[in-house]
This record gives sequence, C-alpha cells and structure tokens, in this order.
Amino acid sequence: MAYNPGKHIVTEFKAVNEELLKDMIAFKQLTNNLIEEFELQKVGEVYHQFDNGGYTAVVCLTESHLSIHTWPEFGVLTFDVFLSNFMSDNDEKVEAIYQNVLMFFKPETTHTNKLRR
Amino acid sequence: MAYNPGKHIVTEFKAVNEELLKDMIAFKQLTNNLIEEFELQKVGEVYHQFDNGGYTAVVCLTESHLSIHTWPEFGVLTFDVFLSNFMSDNDEKVEAIYQNVLMFFKPETTHTNKLRR
Repeated sequence: MAYNPGKHIVTEFKAVNEELLKDMIAFKQLTNNLIEEFELQKVGEVYHQFDNGGYTAVVCLTESHLSIHTWPEFGVLTFDVFLSNFMSDNDEKVEAIYQNVLMFFKPETTHTNKLRR
Repeated sequence: MAYNPGKHIVTEFKAVNEELLKDMIAFKQLTNNLIEEFELQKVGEVYHQFDNGGYTAVVCLTESHLSIHTWPEFGVLTFDVFLSNFMSDNDEKVEAIYQNVLMFFKPETTHTNKLRR
C-alpha cells in the first residue's frame, strides 16, 4: 500500500464582517459542529484571542488539522483545512468544511489554493 | 494600514528515515529550539502520537502556526509553517524554519508550495 495524499484547502477571506472576526466562540462552535457532523476525531486544540479581538486557532485531528487566524482591523482571515486520506477518502469532507466556513464568514473576496499532499 | 500577507510554506517530504518519523520528542525539541531562536511566541500546542509510531502536531503562534503529520509506514510526512507579517517581516524566518526542518528529516524527495496569504 502506498501513501494516498489528502486534500489541503488553504484560503484567505477578505472584506469579512468585523464583529464576526472577533467572535471566537461562534467559530469554535461551528468547528465543533463540523467535526461532529463529519465524524472527525479531534485530539487537541488551541484557541487564543488577542487584545484587539482577533483570534488564532489550530485544531489537531487524527485526520490532520485545521487552522484560522483573523485580523478584524483589516476584515481579513486566513483559514485552512487538511484531511489525509489514510483511513478513508476525505476529499468531500474537506470541500464541505470549506463551504461551511465560507458560508459562515461570507467574504466578498476569496483567494484559495487547493493542494494535494 | 492594509493587511500585509505572510508567507506559508506547505510541503510533503518523501523517502524519510522511518525511525525519524516516529521520534516525536526529537521534532518537538527541534521546534522549540526554532521558536526560541527566531523569537516567536507560542500560545499553545498539540502533540499526538499514534499506536504505529507516527505522530501529528500543531503549534499555535501569535504569528500563526506550524504543523506536521508523519506516516512512518510510508516514509512520508507533511509539514507546513505560516508566519504572518503583521508586526514585522517574517519571510526570512519562514524560510529558515523550513530549511531547518528539511535538514532535520533529509528527505530524498520534496514537494513544496510557497503561498502568499
């Protein structure tokens, strides 16, 4: 059996609502819901809010990870989600999580790379 | 002031020594040394070792994050490091960290994307 690369979506969202970029609790809830819905296994997480309201988070999964960093003062966030295809094909889950996060933040502009690794 | 995108290096290393891909403690030490050397601010981390010896880790920094996932049974790892340029230009630090990790694992094959985000 050979290594079966996973999909990694790496994105930047611009012109996002400032209050949404400060609402770490709402994003954490969204993330936990997505992890449950797509039956992923969380092994740990770090959520950290900055004094200006922006936040940064990484969530470690047995299937790999996701991360977010927000800059409310610029209306910008970076988000990425990477799921390996080790135990099963997770490509559709990666796309679905990306779409959910996109719908949550509703950016006016996106810059997205989809990598195979 | 506008958002100043950072550099994100996303890589896959192949044909890596199996024992090295199981040595989570050595990688953690390397990472902590690099964080200290490059004066980055860690806000949290998750390290998780699987039963087969592979490991997965995410390290959350005020400057963004780094992650690694290893598959010793395939001789493969994925690694990424992303530093924003919010407070200062961190591009050289991203490159230096990448080079240090490359030297640590000495893969025969690399597949690397350097993103601006």
